[in-house]
Amino acid sequence: MVKLENSKNIAMSDSIINLDHGDPTAYEDFWRKTGDRCTVTIRAWDLMSYFSDVNYLCWFLERELAEAIKELHGAVGNAATEDRYIVVGTGSTQLCQAAVHALSSLAGTQPVSVVAAAPYYSTYVEETTYVRSGMYKWEGDAWRFDKKGSYIELVTSPNNPDGTIRETVVNRPDDDEAKVIHDYAYYWPHYTPITRRQDNDIMLFTFSKITGHAGSRIGWALVKDKEVAKKMVEYIIVNSIGVSKESQIRAAKILKVLAETCKSETESFFEYGREMMKNRWEKLREVVKESDVFTLPKYPEAYCNFFGKSLESYPAFAWIGTKEETDLVSDLRRQKVMSRAGERCGSDKKHVRVSMLSREDVFNVFLERLANMKLNKSIDEH
Amino acid sequence: MVKLENSKNIAMSDSIINLDHGDPTAYEDFWRKTGDRCTVTIRAWDLMSYFSDVNYLCWFLERELAEAIKELHGAVGNAATEDRYIVVGTGSTQLCQAAVHALSSLAGTQPVSVVAAAPYYSTYVEETTYVRSGMYKWEGDAWRFDKKGSYIELVTSPNNPDGTIRETVVNRPDDDEAKVIHDYAYYWPHYTPITRRQDNDIMLFTFSKITGHAGSRIGWALVKDKEVAKKMVEYIIVNSIGVSKESQIRAAKILKVLAETCKSETESFFEYGREMMKNRWEKLREVVKESDVFTLPKYPEAYCNFFGKSLESYPAFAWIGTKEETDLVSDLRRQKVMSRAGERCGSDKKHVRVSMLSREDVFNVFLERLANMKLNKSIDEH
Repeated sequence: MVKLENSKNIAMSDSIINLDHGDPTAYEDFWRKTGDRCTVTIRAWDLMSYFSDVNYLCWFLERELAEAIKELHGAVGNAATEDRYIVVGTGSTQLCQAAVHALSSLAGTQPVSVVAAAPYYSTYVEETTYVRSGMYKWEGDAWRFDKKGSYIELVTSPNNPDGTIRETVVNRPDDDEAKVIHDYAYYWPHYTPITRRQDNDIMLFTFSKITGHAGSRIGWALVKDKEVAKKMVEYIIVNSIGVSKESQIRAAKILKVLAETCKSETESFFEYGREMMKNRWEKLREVVKESDVFTLPKYPEAYCNFFGKSLESYPAFAWIGTKEETDLVSDLRRQKVMSRAGERCGSDKKHVRVSMLSREDVFNVFLERLANMKLNKSIDEH
Repeated sequence: MVKLENSKNIAMSDSIINLDHGDPTAYEDFWRKTGDRCTVTIRAWDLMSYFSDVNYLCWFLERELAEAIKELHGAVGNAATEDRYIVVGTGSTQLCQAAVHALSSLAGTQPVSVVAAAPYYSTYVEETTYVRSGMYKWEGDAWRFDKKGSYIELVTSPNNPDGTIRETVVNRPDDDEAKVIHDYAYYWPHYTPITRRQDNDIMLFTFSKITGHAGSRIGWALVKDKEVAKKMVEYIIVNSIGVSKESQIRAAKILKVLAETCKSETESFFEYGREMMKNRWEKLREVVKESDVFTLPKYPEAYCNFFGKSLESYPAFAWIGTKEETDLVSDLRRQKVMSRAGERCGSDKKHVRVSMLSREDVFNVFLERLANMKLNKSIDEH
């Protein structure tokens, strides 16, 4: 049996652990070790205006954040930034809605269908339904989509929840009304091999999932078409009159350090992140292997242009399945582990999404409980 | 004739000045003089989680911000905070939408009518129409509203754009489906006498207009009803998964200092703000008096509980009218002054809204141009 590290937090042994959300607190230790290098100091009279750069299309984007974003994509090689507009958002959550809004408002007919291939990020459902907009309509699983007319396909790659590499599945190349939003929240070298420099029309990124700074609520979109970028900016103006400047300048500082150190063997965040994720995935796979109950997806190795070698994927979420007919989210809840139900992601009761980005002690408690579930099951069966 | 201070920025004499937005940069000088007292320092590993306080209804609200908000309202005496939920938002813009969404989702019939008495804050129109929600419908001027069924009245007091003190105008006291959102963005002692401690069901406040920190995008709602507060939180979760933690802790620090110093004769921001606004309003009134062309609203004096004496109002916007049949926003544009058209606020072409919160040099250039408009007009007439 796999040796599980004892949780230092004894009190936790009886408490509920929440792996439903992808709260990326796993990286706190790394940042603690960077000392003052990424510290920001903000004086009372700094950053008071609504405006950051009145001459730029996205006038509420701080220039230093725009520069840091370009530097980081350049250093990592995961996305093209030239000949594109950068739109900053209150997380990529706000940007995804801004993009759906922008594409819908420019579409010939409304409501525009919005689809994503199952299993999909469950929040897409909420984002596209909660205001009951007449401009677009959530139509669910892209694999089953056959409606005529304008549509938007949300492509998340690597995918949330299951970590697979995704392309569009509704392919209507001759259709002017076919639009795609690429969500690249997890297309970073600690999670997946960087196999190409993406250059799609609308690409979404989020600070949270790169470095773990979820509390800052910073995301950005790289947008080719000027009209689409303009409409996204208009959406964000009405939605929140721009984006926190404090978060922007902090993100700028951290992303700049990330870019500067990403090729260093001792200081690279991506090296650290990859090692941590590898370690967690190996432990999880061992627990799953020793059980006869659970399943995990397998990911092909691929050559990573960033690390210069062939590598595996270590997704930010584990997409855990069972071989038995059971309601896995309830089974886990009984073990005091909160996870996201597969059904919410357009899948079934036999699957759940579990965050791999919790603090180390929480992750270890999770593994213990998962291992015990198997044992309990065995006892039940005999 | 009123003596106008020469603008220090000579280059500005020919440039467009934008007083359309209420960018509150007027207060930068005050904050510059506070030195380090309000400086915040944020380390790389601070504020990483989505969560601030998992035991509080609004779990993304930083505790120190909640404390500072309560202290400040206590010290100023402008609003009751006890027995209410505090919901933080990305500006009161996001909160206003959250409140409309919450009340609509709890209403018996939909779409819920949304109204505000003209002249109203023009952004309310955009906020309630841009997503084309099926849950609520902007029905314009509350004075003319006579539809049956659920409705929400937005009451801004002091009012934006015209600075008047407002109460509800659609009064259906026996109607369970009658809801009110009170926007108290300007109910602070530098703008208006604090005549009572407000204790309405949903009260909105914004950091921007108190201290001038518009770039932080921080607002808060004081909400009596738990279900409404819950629905507002749900809206903000789907809209942006919470609110920037950096902005929250900076706002907390500044609001705390504001509360601690607000009774000091030498350090009080409200004393400073009131003097500055008084000075600007006196200059503006003198320019307007010397013209036969423009009009300004008159505000009654009232006893201010905060300052302990009878005081005038000095609103954050000037609601300028003309006695002649003209398109005032275009007239001002020809003088290179951007203002907000009265028509956008449910009023007419003869009115515009002009920000009183620009930097000092911009304000002085505005006065010069306004004075010249009168002179030019006189020349035309002779």
